[in-house]
Amino acid sequence: MKISSSDATKPVINLDQGDPTALQEYWMSTKMKERCVVVIPGWELMSYFSDKTNVCWFLQQDLAEAIKALHCEIGNAATEERYIVVGNGSSQLCQAALFALSSLSEDKPLSIVAAVPYYSTYEEEASYVQSQLYKWEGDARTFNKPGPYIEMVTSPNNPDGTIREPVVNRGGKVIYDFAYYWPHYTPITHRQDHDIMLFTFSKIAGHAGSRIGWALVKDIEVAKKMVQYLTINSIGVSKESQIRATAILNELTKSCRIKSESFFEYGNEKVKSRWESLRWVVDKTGDKFTLPEYAQAVCNFFGKSSSTYPAFAWLRCNEDKDLEILLKEKYVLKRGGERCGCDKKYIRVDMLGPNKDFQNFLNRLLTIKYPNCFL
Amino acid sequence: MKISSSDATKPVINLDQGDPTALQEYWMSTKMKERCVVVIPGWELMSYFSDKTNVCWFLQQDLAEAIKALHCEIGNAATEERYIVVGNGSSQLCQAALFALSSLSEDKPLSIVAAVPYYSTYEEEASYVQSQLYKWEGDARTFNKPGPYIEMVTSPNNPDGTIREPVVNRGGKVIYDFAYYWPHYTPITHRQDHDIMLFTFSKIAGHAGSRIGWALVKDIEVAKKMVQYLTINSIGVSKESQIRATAILNELTKSCRIKSESFFEYGNEKVKSRWESLRWVVDKTGDKFTLPEYAQAVCNFFGKSSSTYPAFAWLRCNEDKDLEILLKEKYVLKRGGERCGCDKKYIRVDMLGPNKDFQNFLNRLLTIKYPNCFL
Repeated sequence: MKISSSDATKPVINLDQGDPTALQEYWMSTKMKERCVVVIPGWELMSYFSDKTNVCWFLQQDLAEAIKALHCEIGNAATEERYIVVGNGSSQLCQAALFALSSLSEDKPLSIVAAVPYYSTYEEEASYVQSQLYKWEGDARTFNKPGPYIEMVTSPNNPDGTIREPVVNRGGKVIYDFAYYWPHYTPITHRQDHDIMLFTFSKIAGHAGSRIGWALVKDIEVAKKMVQYLTINSIGVSKESQIRATAILNELTKSCRIKSESFFEYGNEKVKSRWESLRWVVDKTGDKFTLPEYAQAVCNFFGKSSSTYPAFAWLRCNEDKDLEILLKEKYVLKRGGERCGCDKKYIRVDMLGPNKDFQNFLNRLLTIKYPNCFL
Repeated sequence: MKISSSDATKPVINLDQGDPTALQEYWMSTKMKERCVVVIPGWELMSYFSDKTNVCWFLQQDLAEAIKALHCEIGNAATEERYIVVGNGSSQLCQAALFALSSLSEDKPLSIVAAVPYYSTYEEEASYVQSQLYKWEGDARTFNKPGPYIEMVTSPNNPDGTIREPVVNRGGKVIYDFAYYWPHYTPITHRQDHDIMLFTFSKIAGHAGSRIGWALVKDIEVAKKMVQYLTINSIGVSKESQIRATAILNELTKSCRIKSESFFEYGNEKVKSRWESLRWVVDKTGDKFTLPEYAQAVCNFFGKSSSTYPAFAWLRCNEDKDLEILLKEKYVLKRGGERCGCDKKYIRVDMLGPNKDFQNFLNRLLTIKYPNCFL
């Protein structure tokens, strides 16, 4: 079945991509609208270089400071004695890390694994250029090849929101992807302190269009190799995006100190209320669907017990049906479980799309059980 | 010999990189200083997407229009019936094109060649991830492997400024890099009209920090594959850089219509006067060094005969010496001929660095012949 967005009566809802536009309303509020305005004259930011003495020579010093200040305020990651490497989003940094670790390894190709269900893009990132440096080997849980390897650990996990640790544990390298380890999505239970940690600007405050990510890297040789990748791949990272990310990250840090203005309080309310609506609808459909349950934990940032509210819902169909096709009939596009190394009964649904799309999605989910019912 | 920039009496001059900061003075002039100021509120440009209906879904429509308007004004490239693919600089686009052409080819790895002396980065771009899709084969002039291939043609060429055509001519694919095919560097003798043409924002008006490049692509399948590369590699391109490039490209187009304000008149004067100074100094050193000579040609844009004034000088040492070491003794860093597939008697010198660096370089070149002479 081909779905066309020109179907006026039932427009297609695209919940495949994780475009975090729901968070835009915070930045459009009366209080925030005049803040974080970035002004760039024509003669500024012209050089390739930011700081020739820094390992990451294209990183703006102000951005490095803003990143450290926010991690310090939130308490989610150690930044001391680490190199900050900025990238065009964390996808590019993940590839830079694969390049760095495999270039520095004596055995090649290095195996790349991630526990199922994994972020679908890892497989593409590790495979598309058919590098001889590394090789995608799929599920970390069934991985039994001898020799060195890299395990991707995403926590909370994309797509299923679970809190994760490495599963192979045979002395290989680990790349930690902490895109969602922020207090609006999950309790901050401790300060992460690992060799390579990736973060993305996109999923914090919703600025996906800026394409800014950063890596906190302990080993200077790894940091240098990552910078080499970024130098050859794109000769660094947009200066305009870096100064805008600086302004916005600084605003986030500042907002933490005033509860009524706190971005993370706002973001947590937003994603929590969407989860409550989704759970209500799933409950109403009887036992047709299942959503993961998340344990409560004390969040050091909020100072209270809280649950996890992932940016994606990992929905399971309890009948013997391909859930992707079932929802396609309802004109809903989402990412099928197969792309995450899993089965077709699962789909990943973006929880941060526009309000209208989310509401329409709930309606269409409900009509699977109640054909004439609309919220 | 190790050169340290802390040597106060003889600071190191770095003319290795092509950081086009000389052009900044145009943007800092009284007339221009208030123009092209870009203002971005905190709530803008948040989505990954620019236009979901476009093959290049992350390309801002305004940037596409600005690119077409400038090419139309200058007359240097055909934009009709082509897809515009935007990238994080033209290096990333070159890699996207290698990926696209080799993915679509039945024979793999595809051979990648360029005529010596070639842009040193091509070799790195085609080799660093050790892809099984393509393989760097070096000099196009001695290339004799049967089967399909990709030839990189840079015109005017980096590093030597020559006007180039493909040299293999056996029906392979050609990627044209027109980074320097703009009227301040070379006469615009005709409108380029090829299947894949790369351009970079960095070398036009000097905004290297924005990391914006674009490809004009005839075949939709090639364009789609390039977009696939950019999607996996960095999920698109900074929106902030795109809107700034839009403002500046539009200003360049507008400036063409007023001779006293024309950026290209200014740029041509700037780079021409540097070349005249360098030729004077080289002449004064007797027959120690040689610079390439460029033929005059009628420039359709300026409407008169003009020469080529490349962004790099390709300097040859006529004695039996390694020119890179000779100049290193004079505390001058530049790119050695070997990196361009050539011999050590050649070096590539950046002609667009800061005024002071360029002046110091001329002085040190002169002291090779006249140890106590300073300009």
